[in-house]
This record gives sequence, C-alpha cells and structure tokens, in this order.
Amino acid sequence: MKINILLFDKFETLDAFGPAEIFGKVQEFELDYFSVEGGIVTSSQNVSIVTKPITESKEDCVWLIPGGEGTRCLVHDEDFLLKLKQLAQKSKFCLSVCTGAALLAKCGVLDGIRATSNKRAFDWVKTTSQKTLWVKKARWVAAGKFYTSSGVSAGMDMALGFVSDILGKNKANEIAKRIEYVWNDDPEKDDFSEN
Amino acid sequence: MKINILLFDKFETLDAFGPAEIFGKVQEFELDYFSVEGGIVTSSQNVSIVTKPITESKEDCVWLIPGGEGTRCLVHDEDFLLKLKQLAQKSKFCLSVCTGAALLAKCGVLDGIRATSNKRAFDWVKTTSQKTLWVKKARWVAAGKFYTSSGVSAGMDMALGFVSDILGKNKANEIAKRIEYVWNDDPEKDDFSEN
Repeated sequence: MKINILLFDKFETLDAFGPAEIFGKVQEFELDYFSVEGGIVTSSQNVSIVTKPITESKEDCVWLIPGGEGTRCLVHDEDFLLKLKQLAQKSKFCLSVCTGAALLAKCGVLDGIRATSNKRAFDWVKTTSQKTLWVKKARWVAAGKFYTSSGVSAGMDMALGFVSDILGKNKANEIAKRIEYVWNDDPEKDDFSEN
Repeated sequence: MKINILLFDKFETLDAFGPAEIFGKVQEFELDYFSVEGGIVTSSQNVSIVTKPITESKEDCVWLIPGGEGTRCLVHDEDFLLKLKQLAQKSKFCLSVCTGAALLAKCGVLDGIRATSNKRAFDWVKTTSQKTLWVKKARWVAAGKFYTSSGVSAGMDMALGFVSDILGKNKANEIAKRIEYVWNDDPEKDDFSEN
C-alpha cells in the first residue's frame, strides 16, 4: 500500500513525520513525499524536504495531509483545492492531521462526513465548511475512507489507529512499543477538547 | 539559542523531528539542520532533508543527535566520531535521542557520565562504551550539559524537559498543550525499560 504525504510550505513538522514514523514501521506500506509542484518544501520548524510533484503520484493510494500555518493561505488557493479534491476523490484512504482537515473540508470532500481537527484552531476550521459534521471531542475520527485527527501529536494516535484498522491491533501495539510511544488507543479520549 | 540537529543517512525520523517540533515552538530557539558534508540526507522513513555542512555551524550551540539504523555503521566511522567529539565538546548542550547516545558514548564524551538510550537496543548501545554510566530505567537523563533520551518518542519528553530546565515548566506545559501532547514529565517514569 502506497502512503503519500502531501507537503506544502509552512506545514507543521510533526503532523507529517509523526505518522511517517509509524507508517515507516509497516512492511506493507511504502512512503513517499509529494507537493503540488515538487521540489523543496520547508516546514514551520525550518525543515526542508525534497518532494515529488503530485503528477507523479498514482491513483488508489493513501494520502496524508498535514496541517500548519500554510493551511491559512491554502484554503483560499482554488487551484490547490481543486488538485487536492482530485487526489482525495481518487484515494484509497485520505487522512489529515490538525488543520489539514480545513483543506479537505474546504475542497468539499468532507461534505456530510464526520471529522475533527486541532482544538485551538477549531473555530476557524469550522468556518471552512458548514457541510462537514465537525466533532470537537475526539482524538481522531474514522469515517469511511476519511480519517481526521486533532492537533499535531494526535496524528500519531490516529496513524496507529489506522494501522490497527488495516492490520490489526497487535500490529499497532507492536509499533507503539518499538518506538516507545504510549498510544492513546481510544479515539474518543481527548484531553484537549475543553481547552 | 541556536539548536542544531545533526542528520545522517538512515536516521530515525521522529528522533529528529519530535524534538524539532517542540524546539520550533520556542521563540528563543533557532533551528538548523546539518550533516557532516551537507546536502541531502535521507531518513529510514524515506524523508530526504536538505542539510548544511557542519563546517558552517557555530560554536556554543545546542546539538541534537538522533538515533536510527545509520548509527550502526557510524560507530565504526573514526572520521565521523572525531568530528562529533569536537562538536559535542564545543557545544553549550548536547542532546541525543535513542541510539544517538551510542555515537556520543563511542566518541568518548560520555565517559563517566550518566546516560540512557533505546531499550530494545540497550545491550548493543552498552557495548559502545564501558566508561559511560548507563541508566536503563529512565525516560531521559540530564547530566550537566548532556541530555540523553530513551527510544524515539522519548525524545519529545526529553525535549520538553530541556525546555523546562532552560525556560521553566510553565513554558514546557504550554508547548505540550499547543501540540496536544500528553507529556510524561517524569524522567524516571519509563514504561519500556522492562521490555
């Protein structure tokens, strides 16, 4: 199964690389990093990543969309949103972390679908789509082929949840143990929704 | 304060970018990514990063050394170890995550110093130096200017511990909350040391 991570300038580092760490431990998964145009993309934490252009991606993949400061501009970028919509529609699964959900919501693929996002940015995220069924108290939400997680670190819990759904809970627990991570395995346990 | 992260091929993604996420939230910290020769370095999870050569780094910085599969070769690379020793000796603080401690131990800077590392690789790490005072049950160990953490995810707990030591616990708690991370703030609480 191909896992593609879609990067853009000012993405949040851990949104992308927390899940990448986990997916990289799954033998059945193959990881790749894309951006719309390809080339070097730089995160909010000054990490510069080499990416492939999305024209080189295949259909029927898993896409992961991080959040971060860059999403604040991208929700107004019609060309980006159209391309994201096409990727999401042709994906096998489509995952977002933090404000990555704002991008999916804005391009319309979350219409009528339950989703969550970062709790500090939740009010803003909700403005990107009134048709998305926003869930505030959730570490992550799995709704058909769409998985959306709460802020930053929550992406790791969601990634393990995704592994669990695809390959079984033993595999997810084994990975958590390998990376010495205390997995919050309950998607409804959200210590940050009241903040 | 300049925080430099030293990368090498087959570093473990989260070892570097978990702490980077946290340090990137500190206004007083400036993050940069280096490798011995500079250029593009690729992690075990296929992330390709643009790095500067260490000749461009300044003295009196904080260095963070990730672990990962790449350390298994580097403990035999005399040239790398000599350069690492110089960086560590001239550093203000020197932090390692996971098997990054094996590199610091092997180059000699942890002689007589308490340190920890990944628990699955602990027996191997211990072989890199009999002079290091290895501590098995620890999420992280702070010993003077050296901070060493246990495996992968433990680097995030250590990074928050470092922020706490430098800027106060309120700052560390504020960052943990911002990134929706449940911080294990007790360096002696280690759920993985018996595995």
